[in-house]
Amino acid sequence: MIVVMSIGASPEQIKDVENRILEWGYGVHPIYGAERTVIGAVGVPEADKARYLAQLERLPYVEKAIAIVRPYKFVSRELHRETTRIRIGDVEIGGTDIVMMAGPCTIETYELTLETARALREMGVRVLRGGAYKPCTSPYSFPGLGIEGLKILRNVGDAVGMAVVTEVMDPRNVEMVCEYADVLQIGTRNMQNYDLLREVGKARRPVLLKRGMWAKLEEWLQAAEYVFLGGNHDVILCERGIRTFETYTRNTLDLSAVPAVRELSHLPIVVDPSHGTGRWSLVPAMTRAAIAAGADGLLIEVHPEPDKAMKDGAQSMTHAGFADILQQCRPVAEAVGRRLV
Amino acid sequence: MIVVMSIGASPEQIKDVENRILEWGYGVHPIYGAERTVIGAVGVPEADKARYLAQLERLPYVEKAIAIVRPYKFVSRELHRETTRIRIGDVEIGGTDIVMMAGPCTIETYELTLETARALREMGVRVLRGGAYKPCTSPYSFPGLGIEGLKILRNVGDAVGMAVVTEVMDPRNVEMVCEYADVLQIGTRNMQNYDLLREVGKARRPVLLKRGMWAKLEEWLQAAEYVFLGGNHDVILCERGIRTFETYTRNTLDLSAVPAVRELSHLPIVVDPSHGTGRWSLVPAMTRAAIAAGADGLLIEVHPEPDKAMKDGAQSMTHAGFADILQQCRPVAEAVGRRLV
Amino acid sequence: MIVVMSIGASPEQIKDVENRILEWGYGVHPIYGAERTVIGAVGVPEADKARYLAQLERLPYVEKAIAIVRPYKFVSRELHRETTRIRIGDVEIGGTDIVMMAGPCTIETYELTLETARALREMGVRVLRGGAYKPCTSPYSFPGLGIEGLKILRNVGDAVGMAVVTEVMDPRNVEMVCEYADVLQIGTRNMQNYDLLREVGKARRPVLLKRGMWAKLEEWLQAAEYVFLGGNHDVILCERGIRTFETYTRNTLDLSAVPAVRELSHLPIVVDPSHGTGRWSLVPAMTRAAIAAGADGLLIEVHPEPDKAMKDGAQSMTHAGFADILQQCRPVAEAVGRRLV
Amino acid sequence: MIVVMSIGASPEQIKDVENRILEWGYGVHPIYGAERTVIGAVGVPEADKARYLAQLERLPYVEKAIAIVRPYKFVSRELHRETTRIRIGDVEIGGTDIVMMAGPCTIETYELTLETARALREMGVRVLRGGAYKPCTSPYSFPGLGIEGLKILRNVGDAVGMAVVTEVMDPRNVEMVCEYADVLQIGTRNMQNYDLLREVGKARRPVLLKRGMWAKLEEWLQAAEYVFLGGNHDVILCERGIRTFETYTRNTLDLSAVPAVRELSHLPIVVDPSHGTGRWSLVPAMTRAAIAAGADGLLIEVHPEPDKAMKDGAQSMTHAGFADILQQCRPVAEAVGRRLV
Repeated sequence: MIVVMSIGASPEQIKDVENRILEWGYGVHPIYGAERTVIGAVGVPEADKARYLAQLERLPYVEKAIAIVRPYKFVSRELHRETTRIRIGDVEIGGTDIVMMAGPCTIETYELTLETARALREMGVRVLRGGAYKPCTSPYSFPGLGIEGLKILRNVGDAVGMAVVTEVMDPRNVEMVCEYADVLQIGTRNMQNYDLLREVGKARRPVLLKRGMWAKLEEWLQAAEYVFLGGNHDVILCERGIRTFETYTRNTLDLSAVPAVRELSHLPIVVDPSHGTGRWSLVPAMTRAAIAAGADGLLIEVHPEPDKAMKDGAQSMTHAGFADILQQCRPVAEAVGRRLV
Repeated sequence: MIVVMSIGASPEQIKDVENRILEWGYGVHPIYGAERTVIGAVGVPEADKARYLAQLERLPYVEKAIAIVRPYKFVSRELHRETTRIRIGDVEIGGTDIVMMAGPCTIETYELTLETARALREMGVRVLRGGAYKPCTSPYSFPGLGIEGLKILRNVGDAVGMAVVTEVMDPRNVEMVCEYADVLQIGTRNMQNYDLLREVGKARRPVLLKRGMWAKLEEWLQAAEYVFLGGNHDVILCERGIRTFETYTRNTLDLSAVPAVRELSHLPIVVDPSHGTGRWSLVPAMTRAAIAAGADGLLIEVHPEPDKAMKDGAQSMTHAGFADILQQCRPVAEAVGRRLV
Repeated sequence: MIVVMSIGASPEQIKDVENRILEWGYGVHPIYGAERTVIGAVGVPEADKARYLAQLERLPYVEKAIAIVRPYKFVSRELHRETTRIRIGDVEIGGTDIVMMAGPCTIETYELTLETARALREMGVRVLRGGAYKPCTSPYSFPGLGIEGLKILRNVGDAVGMAVVTEVMDPRNVEMVCEYADVLQIGTRNMQNYDLLREVGKARRPVLLKRGMWAKLEEWLQAAEYVFLGGNHDVILCERGIRTFETYTRNTLDLSAVPAVRELSHLPIVVDPSHGTGRWSLVPAMTRAAIAAGADGLLIEVHPEPDKAMKDGAQSMTHAGFADILQQCRPVAEAVGRRLV
Repeated sequence: MIVVMSIGASPEQIKDVENRILEWGYGVHPIYGAERTVIGAVGVPEADKARYLAQLERLPYVEKAIAIVRPYKFVSRELHRETTRIRIGDVEIGGTDIVMMAGPCTIETYELTLETARALREMGVRVLRGGAYKPCTSPYSFPGLGIEGLKILRNVGDAVGMAVVTEVMDPRNVEMVCEYADVLQIGTRNMQNYDLLREVGKARRPVLLKRGMWAKLEEWLQAAEYVFLGGNHDVILCERGIRTFETYTRNTLDLSAVPAVRELSHLPIVVDPSHGTGRWSLVPAMTRAAIAAGADGLLIEVHPEPDKAMKDGAQSMTHAGFADILQQCRPVAEAVGRRLV
């Protein structure tokens, strides 16, 4: 922790800050500059840091107090050099293979879901995504089929031999969703829903943690740390776009998060270009780009007839459109030394 | 709904869009311009709008599809001209009086809470705020005392004669928090936690709905509509700053939300300058400004010794500092024809 | 300057960083923590800081390098405690009086300008604003009357006895605009147009420096420092809204910039609620709020018939609407110990 | 243009809006819904649109007025289906080949520039970038060598046989910079410096127009339209990151701009991952991603010794690091059917 004193802070004021740090039990290292003094505090544990920073910044003779170390530990690459590999069904995410997860935004009927799943399975896709509980900005929109949707998803997954990913929004439903799903998705709006994070931290299913549309990388990794501390170490990060001033795209897909997370954390990272752009016509290019940037997987919305979809038709690919993406992406994956399953 | 066809869309393509709208049962009003055709669709209900917009935008010959009407109804001022008044203890929010809600960020001990509550009550404040369940970006930070904190808050409130406001984060806790609190606060991170919104929609307590730090006004009002549709019409909106690129302040307090919400909705609106700025030194000016902008109330963090607070010390006022704010604000309230209780 | 070494940096790598700092001629103060080393560098002048920070951050064994001191000096309040007062015509900005600057967005005709100026002067306004050179997002929009507009503005100002403010966009025009204007306005898009800043730095007219819609406070103050270093110390800052994700308002007016600039700088600060909101209906509330927040002045668009204005009609006040604002604001100004001229 | 009337607008008010549109000479198409009326206006030319929209929105009985058509014309792909190809020296941008433009952030000395240029030329790079006039946030930073830098750049370009790109910031310098440079770069801060855009619009050199860090795609294309209208049709767009709340990266590189611009405009688009990320370690991944997304070229900072660079060392590649990028990117280019020259 670095405490920057105000210009003109008196020796007593500097002493006061030093005493506080010493009383907390940490080491004090003052640096006296020409204009102002800076005090380094050594040994402050993560659990106390936020509190002490705020207390020091409250003093009128402190200009600012800065945290030095990263505010997460178990998900950091600093102490765990190799990328974590997580098994989903018969594929592994975080290794050489790039895992494609695809399916409809929302589970509508058994037939439609089966139709898409079969088409995907034939193209080689091994993980099916589909929403049973849908977060909807409008209270008037279709909220998903709920448990009925979960059952359809599971049945379809079993019928075609695919693992299934679905979102859980309510901590009360975590246990039940675990009965049907292979991977628990935490949506962007729930990235800082701490009770939910704690609950999936206790679950025995990998968690796909979407980035909050307002979240800095650091905050996203802190959210992953919550799950980790609950005992669940199988966390897959998912970049899905952040909110900016741009309105042409639904969100701004931050692909630099892919190599950045690679530097900062050992967790695997996948990309959702469907929500990231909100426009089907941009999905192929952004899928290729995500792979080239080093993503470990993709999450893409596919629907038999997007122009009749219950939700998010504008960003869904047709079966044929998705087949094109696969064809475009295979050579890109190879070009970066990976393989698209 | 307005559908803008692409330049060069063929008569068949225009016909296709018209047919879709007619099949859905709505009226069609084409406008043929020199370069492109625009089709108005009349009668589309809110529940179908998002779906149909997305379906139409999926068509390659549609440039864009635009919703015309506001995506909320019951919270809109269009159909309910007068500002809603909501009773909290013995004060009313939404009328001429400006309601001050103050207290510590986090309930730490009975003694500290009582000390602040007594000081506030003597200054005339009638509503006590305090956190028992704290959303913390870091999993290592103090998460609040939980039910113990609720009990302290209730006891202190009763002891000094103040109504109490506290945050509820988990839908499983809503019923319990209702036993202790007079107002249920929904924090910024949970503005789109729909299961929680539905749960407080069923509660018999007013809801203080903070704006998501990423939320447009429209989305915030849609969140309020969720609560409304659950049957709870006592929703107080709380502007608490949005996330922008500026880093000097913790958030950017969007005071224009005050008159804007006034135009758009009949719900009362309060302002939280503590989280909105993250710096105690800016709180007095922003409190004055919020009142001048027309806020119905304020939510301010006060602590006996902010430089020893468990959380958010940097943005907390001392008792004396808060007394100064009240003194500064009384004439401002009068200047805008209101009264600060 | 604080250099945070990576975890696991070797003694040689730490030595390397220390040697670089010593070679540059600055003092070295290492702090050895349990996990990592932090090195303080004392005496680095502003002119070298950016370069050295970037060089150090380039080293693979450096986690980050942080600047400690504020990157501006002459505009800082740290070394100049009193707010600077700047004379415009017969009023002074930065003192107890709040200076109202009003007028049409764009100079259209002599008659219209005179009509508004007369109305404003009768209400007591002493400074007339009006655009002759208009920055337009669209190349098809009306770019202003140019020198013809300058002449009209000057003539009208002289006829009614008002000082005039107008924008200069091109460094080639600074000298000419000085002949007609009492204050040179630098628009939001030009806040980092350094050749223009250097040019107005040499001018003998006060500069009204609008905040870039993308600019942090720090960058804004650095832009002011440019003008200062050119020799022109009469800089008035103008908050006019920043760009965020919110679309209801044209910009997000950041009123917390008012008390924040007050802390950081001795320069006076005014607020432009017309561009800040883009909606005339929000201008009265935000004008009151700006005054309550401590603004030294206001810049407001007024037009005889906004629904016929050449530009920005949606955010312009009528004469009567502006008279209302004045009436609403006088008591607010008094409530904060100021006077509205 | 679509005018949405307020709920409860009277027949007279609707008539008033219709009459205004008719008086302006445009066609009127009212659509009467259950709750409100919407009026389509046909034939409004671009030059009048902004003005009329603002005038209508000023009316209290108008909810909003919406522009339908794109606010640019000549740079739009709607009327010019093929991507424009622009020749720079002996390469062409906008065709199958991906053009690599690389070099130091700032021209420091002839020797250093030559060293980098030679290394690049040997790797096959044909376009050299380098700054002589540098926009600096801090007035204390090195502003570049000016004309001396231009001469060095030209001489080095001639010596090794490379075309040269450099920034022009001041309209007064455009003519002079044209004498030395093959391509005129407009920096991010000057994207809406209209006098500069008009000046380069008259120049006989291709223009590399960087996206403003605050600019929507639409505004960027309008800036390109400015240059076009000046008579210069050789505009290359350059995505270089936008400003968001994320602080780990210097900017957020918006790669979705690549396929989006491809849809909207016929102009070629290149990507600058150096400024887009601000971190050398992220540059290789983002270069690969840019190519996979469909970029026509790249702009990358390279320096013989980044840890001694005068400017932006943190984001510069060494010669060896850049060679690695080329090697990584060649197969990616081939995977998307392009060729890296």
